[in-house]
Amino acid sequence: MFLANPILVEVTRGDLVESVHRGSIAIADAGGTLRFALGDIETAVYPRSALKPIQALPLIESGAAEAFGLSDEEVALACASHSGEPMHTARVAAWLARIGCGEEDLACGPQPPRYEPALEAMIRSGEKPTRLHNNCSGKHTGFLTVARHWQVATKGYERIDHPVQQAVVTSLRALSGVCELPFGIDGCTAPNFALPLAGFARALAQLAGRRTVGAGRILRAMIAHPELVAGTGRAGTVLMRAACGRAALKVGAEGVFAGMIPETGLGIALKIDDGAGRAAETAIAAILVKLGVIGEARDFIAAPVLDTRGNAVGVRRPASALETAAI
Amino acid sequence: MFLANPILVEVTRGDLVESVHRGSIAIADAGGTLRFALGDIETAVYPRSALKPIQALPLIESGAAEAFGLSDEEVALACASHSGEPMHTARVAAWLARIGCGEEDLACGPQPPRYEPALEAMIRSGEKPTRLHNNCSGKHTGFLTVARHWQVATKGYERIDHPVQQAVVTSLRALSGVCELPFGIDGCTAPNFALPLAGFARALAQLAGRRTVGAGRILRAMIAHPELVAGTGRAGTVLMRAACGRAALKVGAEGVFAGMIPETGLGIALKIDDGAGRAAETAIAAILVKLGVIGEARDFIAAPVLDTRGNAVGVRRPASALETAAI
Repeated sequence: MFLANPILVEVTRGDLVESVHRGSIAIADAGGTLRFALGDIETAVYPRSALKPIQALPLIESGAAEAFGLSDEEVALACASHSGEPMHTARVAAWLARIGCGEEDLACGPQPPRYEPALEAMIRSGEKPTRLHNNCSGKHTGFLTVARHWQVATKGYERIDHPVQQAVVTSLRALSGVCELPFGIDGCTAPNFALPLAGFARALAQLAGRRTVGAGRILRAMIAHPELVAGTGRAGTVLMRAACGRAALKVGAEGVFAGMIPETGLGIALKIDDGAGRAAETAIAAILVKLGVIGEARDFIAAPVLDTRGNAVGVRRPASALETAAI
Repeated sequence: MFLANPILVEVTRGDLVESVHRGSIAIADAGGTLRFALGDIETAVYPRSALKPIQALPLIESGAAEAFGLSDEEVALACASHSGEPMHTARVAAWLARIGCGEEDLACGPQPPRYEPALEAMIRSGEKPTRLHNNCSGKHTGFLTVARHWQVATKGYERIDHPVQQAVVTSLRALSGVCELPFGIDGCTAPNFALPLAGFARALAQLAGRRTVGAGRILRAMIAHPELVAGTGRAGTVLMRAACGRAALKVGAEGVFAGMIPETGLGIALKIDDGAGRAAETAIAAILVKLGVIGEARDFIAAPVLDTRGNAVGVRRPASALETAAI
């Protein structure tokens, strides 16, 4: 990332490019072969919430999901960075109750809903955001479910030395082939593990190719419920719907997007150096079009820049290095 | 900007750098000499709202401000990207009425207030954002004031061929020494003129050194009313207050910050390649500390990255190229 990665996305205004986003992309297949690379894919990056499908693996592979009779909707929420809409919070609340836990057991902090109508409704009613609204509340409920299943302490489940987090480390190490996994604390207080983009793409490809026991369930749940994995109008949700079941997609904070293509066993990982979500959305859309997974995605690869009267005054689009890449 | 500019600001998480922001900086003196440069300062960039102190010059230099008896508060608002707080909108509304105009004469579109308590109050009361809430409503009222003074059509004042916009072009050309000024349409529908960062810094230095008639009034108004130029808690406002009258600062969208230091006649212009406001804030704060204009600015140059429980899990700070720069 400290090398000058190529410009992947550019934002124009009038006839000029106003801002640019550099970044790197790695695409691997389920055999572990790197199929495409652009930019630095060896420096460790935090996948942030794009790690969630892997963080949810112990939930499946421990037998916890089966023991508690989790629905695909709940598994999708375990992989989600949701928008805090009622469809998300109600399901997480019901799931928590079923494992004998409550909002107070979630280690994540309260967070206003990302979905504006939900946020506005709360402001109008005077309701305060809760931990259920935290975009990671499903992931945390997944962690709690594993702790319950193993009959270990639920308190402290977010700490690096807790068996649940150690199970995540074990899964990630096995799938990525990366031994050294330094961690930082994610926005939701759980550890997030840094690894080279190449290793992350390999891990995603292991899931895409169903090379680990829990992969099929994770993919099925995500693909069946794109609106639970993100939310109304979100890029991941819109692009998964456009892919008609051919892709599982997961956004991560600070400019990350992950993709899994079951039919080809490809895992896609990208990181925008500067952390811009707008660029990550354009980049993943462009990659999906190039791979033939979606037909087009003009809302993301020719996204109008609007003035406050609603006129298009520029465009956000893939830059030359991405546009011309032979993916 | 298409060259790999140096990394100016970095954002860490745990022990690793998570995201980086490249950019360029130009500092000029009132004699027109470039005193400091880092990165590409020759490619044309849009100053966006950092252009407002220059866009306000015709308001002073035409005699319109004097003719309409504008207060320093109103001149500060002409230079503002305000937060849509009542202190901003009430003053703009009163000023509009005084020149015989109304909200409907503003060419900018409605925009929700940036100041959260103001936005929440509107949501609770069911009030809709108006053009007065647009962060540029003061600039537009300034344009209208000039049109009134010149007794030319107010309708179309935002168009490139209107005398008010042509006066802006003339001022910018004279101050920057840059003849060719391509334009794009800003978020508020007015033209915004692109120029090399070096030229923009020279223009700002002309203001800082009071080399043009209107400069003194612009500087005095901005420095006297930092909360009108931006808003409660905003970086520009906080840093101008910290500078105790020694700096006029102006943010621009897409990662721009401009500074004018009257005591030394320095003009500072910076652009973050990727458009990130967080990086522009850290960079301008670091520059002001290096110049001795403010004592410290830990909220910006060692800004904690917080998780949703409020714990610091990383930091946003100047990167090596900026930290070690001999400014």
